[in-house]
Amino acid sequence: MTAFADRAARNLGDLRKQKPLIHNITNFVVMNVSANALLAMGASPVMAHAPNEVEEMVSFAGALVLNIGTLTDAWVGAMETAARKAAAGSIPIILDPVGSGATALRTHSAKRLIDAAGVTVIRGNASEILSLRDKNSKTKGVDAIHSVSEAADAARTLATELDTTLAITGPVDLVTDGQRVLRIANGDAMMAYVTGTGCMATATIGAFLAVDGDPVTATATALAYFGLAGELAARQSRGPGSFMVALLDALYTLTPKDLAQGCKIS
Amino acid sequence: MTAFADRAARNLGDLRKQKPLIHNITNFVVMNVSANALLAMGASPVMAHAPNEVEEMVSFAGALVLNIGTLTDAWVGAMETAARKAAAGSIPIILDPVGSGATALRTHSAKRLIDAAGVTVIRGNASEILSLRDKNSKTKGVDAIHSVSEAADAARTLATELDTTLAITGPVDLVTDGQRVLRIANGDAMMAYVTGTGCMATATIGAFLAVDGDPVTATATALAYFGLAGELAARQSRGPGSFMVALLDALYTLTPKDLAQGCKIS
Amino acid sequence: MTAFADRAARNLGDLRKQKPLIHNITNFVVMNVSANALLAMGASPVMAHAPNEVEEMVSFAGALVLNIGTLTDAWVGAMETAARKAAAGSIPIILDPVGSGATALRTHSAKRLIDAAGVTVIRGNASEILSLRDKNSKTKGVDAIHSVSEAADAARTLATELDTTLAITGPVDLVTDGQRVLRIANGDAMMAYVTGTGCMATATIGAFLAVDGDPVTATATALAYFGLAGELAARQSRGPGSFMVALLDALYTLTPKDLAQGCKIS
Repeated sequence: MTAFADRAARNLGDLRKQKPLIHNITNFVVMNVSANALLAMGASPVMAHAPNEVEEMVSFAGALVLNIGTLTDAWVGAMETAARKAAAGSIPIILDPVGSGATALRTHSAKRLIDAAGVTVIRGNASEILSLRDKNSKTKGVDAIHSVSEAADAARTLATELDTTLAITGPVDLVTDGQRVLRIANGDAMMAYVTGTGCMATATIGAFLAVDGDPVTATATALAYFGLAGELAARQSRGPGSFMVALLDALYTLTPKDLAQGCKIS
Repeated sequence: MTAFADRAARNLGDLRKQKPLIHNITNFVVMNVSANALLAMGASPVMAHAPNEVEEMVSFAGALVLNIGTLTDAWVGAMETAARKAAAGSIPIILDPVGSGATALRTHSAKRLIDAAGVTVIRGNASEILSLRDKNSKTKGVDAIHSVSEAADAARTLATELDTTLAITGPVDLVTDGQRVLRIANGDAMMAYVTGTGCMATATIGAFLAVDGDPVTATATALAYFGLAGELAARQSRGPGSFMVALLDALYTLTPKDLAQGCKIS
Repeated sequence: MTAFADRAARNLGDLRKQKPLIHNITNFVVMNVSANALLAMGASPVMAHAPNEVEEMVSFAGALVLNIGTLTDAWVGAMETAARKAAAGSIPIILDPVGSGATALRTHSAKRLIDAAGVTVIRGNASEILSLRDKNSKTKGVDAIHSVSEAADAARTLATELDTTLAITGPVDLVTDGQRVLRIANGDAMMAYVTGTGCMATATIGAFLAVDGDPVTATATALAYFGLAGELAARQSRGPGSFMVALLDALYTLTPKDLAQGCKIS
């Protein structure tokens, strides 16, 4: 068993023992499945976005999950308020910059949240993550990256510039804080046919951040766990409907030992 | 067959014949599953929260379901408008005070809705329900209750003070209007691993209130029906994903006769 | 193979090749299932409603789907902004006037969207569609229609008056642009027990409009495809929970050849 496998098993076990409250300010499309994924894995989800409630709510939380999937200025304002409070209390924050780079509002809002409080982890696909560069960045754009090693270099540079841990998910996920680089090879292609699997991965990272103080290992082990659940689900499903059902079942039934044996972190 | 079993069967049969319109102003997380639960059991759900529409919509309804799970002041305002109209038309109202006691906004908003119109039934867990006490209440707090009989006494006192029917759900549900106390022993532990089962129970009570003029029997039979569906679903599922699928199927397939035989109301 | 069967197969094949972006401004109840249906069939859904984002987002889209199911004035305003931009760019627009005729806000909002930009297709049930008549309309009301041929006449007259293609869905769907009238006999009664099947049908039409420039054939083939998926799902399900799972699976697994063989358009 590698050190990562051991850490993955410990994190999942701790999650089920501690049942941390995970405060989500997320998009309308995935609220239900995010809550269900968190419950299935053993966490305690709460969704709350009222500007006059988020500070009180986040103060009880083990992590704050921010997701701009169906953003408006008002919602981003509530996210910013919650993020400032979380940062002041050293509560880890994970940002999912859904669609950053696709519209000006999304790119601007993601950067606004990063600037407001500093976030512990950012998870997105390569184009979302690379859209977070500012004009002085030394990071290449997504179109200028032609190899796995160029992608890793870009991610390390950007993680250092943003002072955060980045999780770039795809066929193989890449996690880096600018120093360490980990790769996670769990997952299944069917995940692309169900809405919210990226957002659920983000929520899973939130739950693991609540029990593991190292953002790099928390993120990598969360992605391995979520991806492994996807692998199991794919074997038991005939399409995206039965895949989602099996995914929630797998998040619930996977044991720490299963995770230690199945996780592919390197 | 007990009188309760008979009433439960009659209510479910009446629901499927009358297909009452149930107007829900509920939270984003459970809107889809609440609508699906109501459709599966035979009711006609509508979700509508626009302040310039709720009065017209509720005037067609057999019951109004209010749920503060992802509340904002604007949504609570729409709930209050709808509640006043419903009360004026003697349309039953059920309130689910999600998270009351956890944040000031939730506790305040739940009390605001109770004060605005009087609600027919309030369903929550013990801490949510006991958070509704005001400072002059003679009811003990949740931490001061150490036995089943103390819980029943507290519930009766609070139901009388609030002039409503209370449904405190847990491993065994308790329903009281301050005079009568009923206990419902249906349900399954898997319900805690799926988001919205409490909210779906509340919506189910709404549907039963539309066909049974006695809030105590409407509430108790609704909880027995919903809990029995959960028992059946648990036998056919491997985790929370397949449980939710089987729960909706069970709400649809359960017959009045099944309910009479399986309900555990005392 | 009829010309319609051929067209249906071609549209589904083109959809899976082109994977058009479908921009949805839709209701909270069905956002998740609409996104999942679009992903399952091969399209790329996006949900975005911020007034300062919808114009940019819709400019990338192959079609715009508007649905007033949980409307407020602010959301209808965003829909209107997006619709004007789409119309200016010749991007097809489909409107689902959920509940039009039931409340003044819904009827007024549906008409407002039609007047703002002209919509390519409107899909609803008979009472929703006929509520869109204005006071000078020569179309009969829903209560004055007593036969299939009267319904077709009313639909043709109204389609001409509104200068759009109408899809009136029910046991047999009717599609007309005022000249041609097509009927689609695919579907299953179980669809009425799951929330959002009408809204998913509307989203499916949106996806087919992105690959077929003729609104009548795009709409008819979309409804045949969605209805055929419902037929397959019904054979594999025990109630509305398993039906929805099987429906998403069927949207994913149905091939163009299956559709050519199973579609019932005349």
